[in-house]
Amino acid sequence: MRTIDWVDGGIELVDQTMLPHELSVPRVDDIDALIHAISRLAVRGAPALGVAGAFGVALLAAAHPGDPGTVRREASRLRAARPTAVNLGWGVDRALAVLDAGPEEVLAEAERIRDEDIAACISMGLYGADLVRELVGRARPRIMTICNTGALATVEPGTALGVILTLHEQGALEEAIPLETRPLLQGSRLTAWELSRAGVPFRLVVDSAGPFLLARGEADAVMIGADRIAADGDTANKIGSFSLALAARHAGVPFFVVAPESTVDMGTPGGDAIDIEDRGAAEVVAFRSERTAPNGTRAINPAFDITPYELITAIVTDRRVIHLDKGDTLAGTPLGDTRTI
Amino acid sequence: MRTIDWVDGGIELVDQTMLPHELSVPRVDDIDALIHAISRLAVRGAPALGVAGAFGVALLAAAHPGDPGTVRREASRLRAARPTAVNLGWGVDRALAVLDAGPEEVLAEAERIRDEDIAACISMGLYGADLVRELVGRARPRIMTICNTGALATVEPGTALGVILTLHEQGALEEAIPLETRPLLQGSRLTAWELSRAGVPFRLVVDSAGPFLLARGEADAVMIGADRIAADGDTANKIGSFSLALAARHAGVPFFVVAPESTVDMGTPGGDAIDIEDRGAAEVVAFRSERTAPNGTRAINPAFDITPYELITAIVTDRRVIHLDKGDTLAGTPLGDTRTI
Repeated sequence: MRTIDWVDGGIELVDQTMLPHELSVPRVDDIDALIHAISRLAVRGAPALGVAGAFGVALLAAAHPGDPGTVRREASRLRAARPTAVNLGWGVDRALAVLDAGPEEVLAEAERIRDEDIAACISMGLYGADLVRELVGRARPRIMTICNTGALATVEPGTALGVILTLHEQGALEEAIPLETRPLLQGSRLTAWELSRAGVPFRLVVDSAGPFLLARGEADAVMIGADRIAADGDTANKIGSFSLALAARHAGVPFFVVAPESTVDMGTPGGDAIDIEDRGAAEVVAFRSERTAPNGTRAINPAFDITPYELITAIVTDRRVIHLDKGDTLAGTPLGDTRTI
Repeated sequence: MRTIDWVDGGIELVDQTMLPHELSVPRVDDIDALIHAISRLAVRGAPALGVAGAFGVALLAAAHPGDPGTVRREASRLRAARPTAVNLGWGVDRALAVLDAGPEEVLAEAERIRDEDIAACISMGLYGADLVRELVGRARPRIMTICNTGALATVEPGTALGVILTLHEQGALEEAIPLETRPLLQGSRLTAWELSRAGVPFRLVVDSAGPFLLARGEADAVMIGADRIAADGDTANKIGSFSLALAARHAGVPFFVVAPESTVDMGTPGGDAIDIEDRGAAEVVAFRSERTAPNGTRAINPAFDITPYELITAIVTDRRVIHLDKGDTLAGTPLGDTRTI
């Protein structure tokens, strides 16, 4: 199952807000519907957003042939739908770069991004599984993760969760420990759903239990995705990642970031330069339609946090492993092959 | 408003599971109803549980006059309703100690515990507010807290939240930053409700945002309650406390524990000896009646975590301040006065 794809002249995507109750795959035929789907998180996850951005430009190119000004203007609105996710703008830009060659070429470029995403995920799974074998001293480790970084965050089969699934397929995983990931519960709703479907043993925990369970020796590694990786290795990812990194360091447990090369933003020197999206109070003061806090309650609701590179053991991409804890840097680690099974 | 009290031969208590939507004060006339109220967290919070334990013994003594065997047997069941909370057993024991003097004396002892609890809260508020002024270099600090440690956790007016309220009354607070406190949302439902009623400026955050906001310099101190304090200062408190302590240390922000002397358990040498209650999967996989994770999802659901004493700046009780960061110990810090306004 692909989370997002181009079918018969339009986009089809899994509506992730309906999971785990219903697998709904609505069709998106215009840019406003796509922007709405992105902003309400029907489609989410950094790599999937890159593909969504490119398919969005393909929609625009088909709707406005011979009018590049309109395509570019509408594409700017698309890019702004999620400001922190670098992949969205990256997918938009790659598709726009071939705009002069015509709508067919824009679509072909978007489909290449989709195919590259699938290949990148497979490669990350292999690099990541080898790294876990190398650094984690337990034949079948227990791996903690946050948010959803599986097939639903990519096209298929995932970044951090892709590594966990790869280890499971290799018979080299005891259990996954996903955090529920407030406020939108991507861990409960999406990651638990994917783990269930794949038959991976797992136990769900509330976010604030993650650090304590690490201190108690209940997990052998932490593995997260990334929304943006700065040039120094500082990583923007789902709120709660920083707290896990701090606890992993305290517990002496390795902490891995798994993300495609497209997530690396060498134009951003460090985490301080990353804009953190505040998604407003509504997600915090109510659970779906049920209000949980008194009327008038204000909130701080950062969607992401920054994990400083000093707390990251290694970054795994589709083309290399950067051992930050050994002093390796993104700039100094050469690209390798995209691995295939 | 008192969270729990003895009225006309029975217990009246605020049903905290109904907040913030409804202020319901059911009457509890027998021990099974009280045990049920405690285990479903209708009444909660370490000091309030001490009073509940003592009033529970008063109920038993009145129901079984001249039958101390039955009273003691039923009291054991009461004590087991919440295994981690030392105050529950402490309140039960204090009331049982005067059982031979008759039901009236048991009730008088329970009412003394209630009155001492109120006096202790007032004293903690004064000690704590002075400590904040001494150690926090900002005239009107922003204080982060977790769970509910206000009037609803005590009889009135609270432990950690009592200090925050005291600072507010003194014009010495910029804002409170309560964590929502999954899985049962005591922060959203109870603390936000108390802060609203008291007119204290506050912004609510999801639990995993707390550590990151500390790293970003958004709070000047963290103040938590305690369910049990071991002899070395290790503190059992709501899950998530440890993660805040780790982040506070990383950010250079002071971390305070505020709890009455009755929470100190010199018979428990350290945190490793504290039994952590696992409350089961139901609270994690569903939100009230709505399921959030797939069917069959298992969970790890520790109700508490342990914050090691090394991460605690100071413990504030109703009779002293123990500066753990300066090498002071519980055993070595003499008791002072219970302060009054």
